[in-house]
Amino acid sequence: MMPTPIQSSQPIFSEAQVAQAISALHIADIHQATIGEVLLVATYLEKTFAIPMIRMDQGSPGLPANKVGLEAERAALARGVGSQYPPAGGIPELKTAASAFVKAFLAIDISPRSCVPTTGSVCSSFGSFIACTQRNQTQDTILFLDPGFPIQKAQLNVLGIPYEAFDINPFRGQGLGPKIETYLAKGNIAGIIYSNPNNPTWGCLEESELQQIGTLATKYDVIILEDQAYFCMDTRKSLGTPYQAPFAPTIANYTDNYILMISASKMFSYAGQRCALLCISDKLYERHYPILAARYHDAGIFGDSLIASILYMITSGTTSSTQYGVAEMLKQSVLGTIDFVHDTHAYADRAARMKTIFEKYGFHVVYDKDVSAPVGDGFFFTIGFGTMTSGELVSALLHYGVSSIALSTTGGDLEGVRACTSRMREDLYEVLDTRMAAFAEAYKDRLQKK
Amino acid sequence: MMPTPIQSSQPIFSEAQVAQAISALHIADIHQATIGEVLLVATYLEKTFAIPMIRMDQGSPGLPANKVGLEAERAALARGVGSQYPPAGGIPELKTAASAFVKAFLAIDISPRSCVPTTGSVCSSFGSFIACTQRNQTQDTILFLDPGFPIQKAQLNVLGIPYEAFDINPFRGQGLGPKIETYLAKGNIAGIIYSNPNNPTWGCLEESELQQIGTLATKYDVIILEDQAYFCMDTRKSLGTPYQAPFAPTIANYTDNYILMISASKMFSYAGQRCALLCISDKLYERHYPILAARYHDAGIFGDSLIASILYMITSGTTSSTQYGVAEMLKQSVLGTIDFVHDTHAYADRAARMKTIFEKYGFHVVYDKDVSAPVGDGFFFTIGFGTMTSGELVSALLHYGVSSIALSTTGGDLEGVRACTSRMREDLYEVLDTRMAAFAEAYKDRLQKK
Repeated sequence: MMPTPIQSSQPIFSEAQVAQAISALHIADIHQATIGEVLLVATYLEKTFAIPMIRMDQGSPGLPANKVGLEAERAALARGVGSQYPPAGGIPELKTAASAFVKAFLAIDISPRSCVPTTGSVCSSFGSFIACTQRNQTQDTILFLDPGFPIQKAQLNVLGIPYEAFDINPFRGQGLGPKIETYLAKGNIAGIIYSNPNNPTWGCLEESELQQIGTLATKYDVIILEDQAYFCMDTRKSLGTPYQAPFAPTIANYTDNYILMISASKMFSYAGQRCALLCISDKLYERHYPILAARYHDAGIFGDSLIASILYMITSGTTSSTQYGVAEMLKQSVLGTIDFVHDTHAYADRAARMKTIFEKYGFHVVYDKDVSAPVGDGFFFTIGFGTMTSGELVSALLHYGVSSIALSTTGGDLEGVRACTSRMREDLYEVLDTRMAAFAEAYKDRLQKK
Repeated sequence: MMPTPIQSSQPIFSEAQVAQAISALHIADIHQATIGEVLLVATYLEKTFAIPMIRMDQGSPGLPANKVGLEAERAALARGVGSQYPPAGGIPELKTAASAFVKAFLAIDISPRSCVPTTGSVCSSFGSFIACTQRNQTQDTILFLDPGFPIQKAQLNVLGIPYEAFDINPFRGQGLGPKIETYLAKGNIAGIIYSNPNNPTWGCLEESELQQIGTLATKYDVIILEDQAYFCMDTRKSLGTPYQAPFAPTIANYTDNYILMISASKMFSYAGQRCALLCISDKLYERHYPILAARYHDAGIFGDSLIASILYMITSGTTSSTQYGVAEMLKQSVLGTIDFVHDTHAYADRAARMKTIFEKYGFHVVYDKDVSAPVGDGFFFTIGFGTMTSGELVSALLHYGVSSIALSTTGGDLEGVRACTSRMREDLYEVLDTRMAAFAEAYKDRLQKK
């Protein structure tokens, strides 16, 4: 029998196949699926029906781990590190390297004492949320500048810490400060968290916006948790040359109330080894909180309590060999022998090509501009399709062999999905083009924008 | 000038020197000092006055890290593991090896699915405390069978979870069950935690005691968190031959409501790499809790919620290379090519020699027997001196160049200190003998027992 010619609008996975996956995996509502659930469905469909999915879901690095780090880890293991518990605040080599690193690439001063390794930035935010909301009796709530990273809200759910959130998109520029102040004026906000560049939109807060946030943080004594997971990856500027402007924008220039979260996961493609840096403002580190002293029977020094009384109780330190690996990568970055911005530029190239294909078939970039410029290309971008809601689009794309995350699960008010470029491969661009051509044909009636 | 001959009762560090250390380190009360604080004082005194301390404080391994693990980690790094996030539930190699390991050395069946790596047993208990106390609305409190590991209470303090505790010493044997039942009958106990062998006493719960605990756990639906940090290290029995009796005693033989915590830190001298196993009873793993489902928007399956909705939010997995290292060590232990009991026997030898010295100078072992036999020699032992309280003894020993932990900080009702054998060295036995001779001379009036 001759094979049936594929119709131009035919999906890759049938309704029945997708339904089978959703049912087998006990997923309540695919329109509201978490990252973890989308990942499971995508893997299930690929394995069960032996058809490759274009995986735009999880933000796991798609480049090889930095060899300098791996080599330094291997050398450390050969030297026999591994038996003794690591120091609670990290090995001296890593602390010194981290301090030099933030000086070289952000032009800010943080002492080695205040730079602390953790088991990934997830652990950094988990511990910081606890310290920020326990330091006094009135400030108990975290404010998210959304869209954001859903896992951080899930962490607060584990801990039973309340949060508030709003989509900053309608307030970009001079409207951002006044909007944030409506939350801070109530007095219950302990900390504000955002990622810059942003996950999922890849938007970047500009200097004028950071200035407003920093001024408010000082005025209302709120701690800013700045997630720099995609460190210096805004390719619109030539960041990443040690000790040379331009430097990546950071809240550290506008307030003393900050904690920077810098992850090795994307910068050095090191997610598997679980190591990040928590860089605490020295002034914040030294602040004394009687309520922390009373709770932890310690001196109530913010940084010491966070390290010894909170983080140490969660993992008792960070993997020794990995600390040596990360220390070496930071050191060589400062020396200029590692160019981590260049090393991760592939993500931006992929984003540009993927966006071109999506736009060719009628998709639009949802969060498309910062205050003064269009968003750049990088690890993530956001796309929408005509009148489709976030949930509809995630589901429809899955049928056409593309997995993504609904923007509604990230706190975004706009309709669309987050696309991650990390797992894109050269051989998949043509596949993506063909699948999206079929998608556009199938859903052409949904294309008129609202 | 001729050096003054050392008086036989003269301390190693003067009052002024110890006071200087305590003041410099902001320690409120040395009699109530935490492990971390004792460690800081000991290090300060050693560094400032260049006199070696006999460090009996922190339970950090004093043997080299297992080479098989280090080699497997190095090979994994060379293969390029490290870039991708590890699976939430652990790499398949480790899960399979862990399942075989508990079968070989405990003679119990736990499926690979229910064996999960964590960033150390500290992280295992942290996550387990959350899951145990969130699974229904009435059971919100943890019960400690004391003396115990102070960090576990500190974890509950971080989380704001209530606990109750009692020293089991007066209730050993058939009295233990009835005593525990007085707590469980109130209905608020979610879980019971203890370590076996015990930290700090090195006592071991006997089969008849475990049977009582298991029966009560089933009757009152309480989850037992069994900390096997010192796996098979009770040297009174010949444990540790794969698939061959005697097997280490475990609560798994007496109830389905258990979570075992097995750490690589002492067994393989691997504390620096931060990896442990959480082995969940399969029946407990599969239980459905509507309150977990509602909170985490997941299916409410206990094991899945603990792994994906709780532990994943804390560290997003465990260091990849270390998982390969631990998998290989578990595998070779099951094959009999690693003999981890033999490898760590040095601790028992040290304990015997140290106890002999202490007893020679009038010290006594505080927690000296189980129900049917004297406690064995191992990683820890407890000593007291005449009428001295725990706090007095910690402080007095510090002046004589020996650092230890007050039993009062471990929940023990008896007076004395915990001594850890891990950092003892061949050249220090004579030093210990000389120092304790001077100590005994100085405090001979405190020697009459109460």
